[in-house]
Amino acid sequence: MAHVKIKVDAMTAFCLDVFQKFGFTAEESKIITDVLMLSDIYGIESHGAQRLVRYHKGISSGMIKVEAKPEIVFETPVSAVIDGHEGMGQLIGHFGMELAIKKAKASGIGIVTARESNHYGIAGYYAKMACDEGLIGISSTNSEAIVVPTFGRQAMLGTNPIAISMPADPYPFFFDAATSVVTRGKFEMYNKAAKPVPDCWGADENGQSCTDAGHVLANIKSKAGGGILPLGGAEELTGSHKGYGYAMVSEIFTSILSLGMTSNYNLMNNHGGTCHSFVAIDPKIFGDPEAIKKHFSDFLEELRQSPKRAGHDRIYTHGEKEILASADRKANGIDVDIKTLEEMKDCANYVGADFDHYFGDLGIDVQFNPEEHTQY
Amino acid sequence: MAHVKIKVDAMTAFCLDVFQKFGFTAEESKIITDVLMLSDIYGIESHGAQRLVRYHKGISSGMIKVEAKPEIVFETPVSAVIDGHEGMGQLIGHFGMELAIKKAKASGIGIVTARESNHYGIAGYYAKMACDEGLIGISSTNSEAIVVPTFGRQAMLGTNPIAISMPADPYPFFFDAATSVVTRGKFEMYNKAAKPVPDCWGADENGQSCTDAGHVLANIKSKAGGGILPLGGAEELTGSHKGYGYAMVSEIFTSILSLGMTSNYNLMNNHGGTCHSFVAIDPKIFGDPEAIKKHFSDFLEELRQSPKRAGHDRIYTHGEKEILASADRKANGIDVDIKTLEEMKDCANYVGADFDHYFGDLGIDVQFNPEEHTQY
Repeated sequence: MAHVKIKVDAMTAFCLDVFQKFGFTAEESKIITDVLMLSDIYGIESHGAQRLVRYHKGISSGMIKVEAKPEIVFETPVSAVIDGHEGMGQLIGHFGMELAIKKAKASGIGIVTARESNHYGIAGYYAKMACDEGLIGISSTNSEAIVVPTFGRQAMLGTNPIAISMPADPYPFFFDAATSVVTRGKFEMYNKAAKPVPDCWGADENGQSCTDAGHVLANIKSKAGGGILPLGGAEELTGSHKGYGYAMVSEIFTSILSLGMTSNYNLMNNHGGTCHSFVAIDPKIFGDPEAIKKHFSDFLEELRQSPKRAGHDRIYTHGEKEILASADRKANGIDVDIKTLEEMKDCANYVGADFDHYFGDLGIDVQFNPEEHTQY
Repeated sequence: MAHVKIKVDAMTAFCLDVFQKFGFTAEESKIITDVLMLSDIYGIESHGAQRLVRYHKGISSGMIKVEAKPEIVFETPVSAVIDGHEGMGQLIGHFGMELAIKKAKASGIGIVTARESNHYGIAGYYAKMACDEGLIGISSTNSEAIVVPTFGRQAMLGTNPIAISMPADPYPFFFDAATSVVTRGKFEMYNKAAKPVPDCWGADENGQSCTDAGHVLANIKSKAGGGILPLGGAEELTGSHKGYGYAMVSEIFTSILSLGMTSNYNLMNNHGGTCHSFVAIDPKIFGDPEAIKKHFSDFLEELRQSPKRAGHDRIYTHGEKEILASADRKANGIDVDIKTLEEMKDCANYVGADFDHYFGDLGIDVQFNPEEHTQY
């Protein structure tokens, strides 16, 4: 599929405009845009502008309630439970981590769990919010059940990412990963390229390993059974029960503690019901934050400097690839495929934003055919 | 290798005697024994009586200091840092989780990190301590570096298990797993059976996947390079960076926050330097603990009842296998191989305990040849 490069500033301005036209305030639109743009800038394109179509769909169908405000329904000095009232996930996420940070600054630690939300973008954004304040940040979300438990053939768990970020020099530790072996986006890439996926990635309708990405994706869509495998693949021999276990840890801190919907009820009957968690920990509750940061930075450097596998010249610590991607995207723009561009134009038309004002100089004639865009 | 069944009571009485003869108080010996016995009862034999030889070695070499008492060197209402002063890991572990539980009961949450400890047995024991009190328990430990980071060829990380336990009916959630794809014990089993290991398990001295268990083990012992792979195997394609990431999460909460030794310095120069973490969270800081427990139990039951993969008649939730093993071990005894039995006799002779008093009725002539037991 053809791709274009879009400047970060142009995409940011476009998103700000679109979300305001959807009815969000300028401040809310800035938060939503910021979450999406961080994904694109960090090279996690699957969760950036590509997702605009999902939010467009969610808002226009009424699943995402534009006017909803997150409400604290239970609270202690170190914890809170938020009811998102089916609002925009990014706003609930930002509110949740702000609250966790506030509690961490006052009490040393804050754990916030949220229910009745929607897709909130990358978990890492919220972990980073705490890290930017000098704290350890952790965030997780459950999601639509597209992952099968070990020995199962029905998807019962979301890809349930867990992200953690912590200050370090020369750049922070930033680990954001689905607890499934891969996300749906990877299947879509392989399907487009007509390449078989590794046999530890997917299960067919009988729960057996399946290397046909298109078959797994079609089954997920039609709920015919099977789905993505946990980190560790299909067998206990390769650690399947461990990935399944981390997915459960995500559920505990998101849907269980908030009394929200577990992943197997997510996105049913045009109801998101997504749950999140936000943890902020002030390193000073363990002594000297600067000494801790130095100790961590030294270890990260030792890892990077340790001997490499034959054929590899670099060992990455988590967050390094995002730093490299940031430099590239800020200089060269964000990679956007034509399908996404069409969806963006569709979205602009829906809300009455001037697509050409932002992207008219791309020199690409984006075909817009409303007939093709009634289904997402 | 030949195996015998030993009754839980006999093994318990033997361990209590041995640890007291090593110089631990009756109370301390009970704690240490309790940790070891839970491993055996839960079917995690690699961390039970089989490890007696390591503690014997550690104590007799002076690496484990029998008289050491854990000291709280920093503390807030929600946190603490412990210096273990090179004492017995189980005692530091028990002290650490007791402290986390106390803080959780007073403040809702307690996070304790410990440095200068030694091998503490199974991480799950400490998570279970909190769960037994109606709390969510989490524990992790770093360990000797035998795991290579993604794209590396030198072991820089321990198998760094993370355990989490939470109350549920009819039995608690109990997830205890190395962040490496497997532990060293699995390599030893395959090596004894002369079977090739899956190619996602180990790396040779060049960092390349290696299916020869004996070769990987020999390299680990001689520090020739390579080692065990992270959960997710060798490649990013299969999630190697995720297992590596979870190992890092373990380091953060164990060695980094305690300013202790990271895994790559563990066990150097007859100095353990092992670090642990202990987290206890009272579910009542999120509302109604009984409602949360019910919600969790319902989800666990839904997972167990969900459709099975062809060829499988059961989906396990984490902790179920341990419940099944407990029933078996309590009825039928613990499986102990002859080598372990010899090591136990060796240990008994060293401390002056009467081996035959406990195991004389096994009807097996345990050969004891001191010449064979000078090296561990």
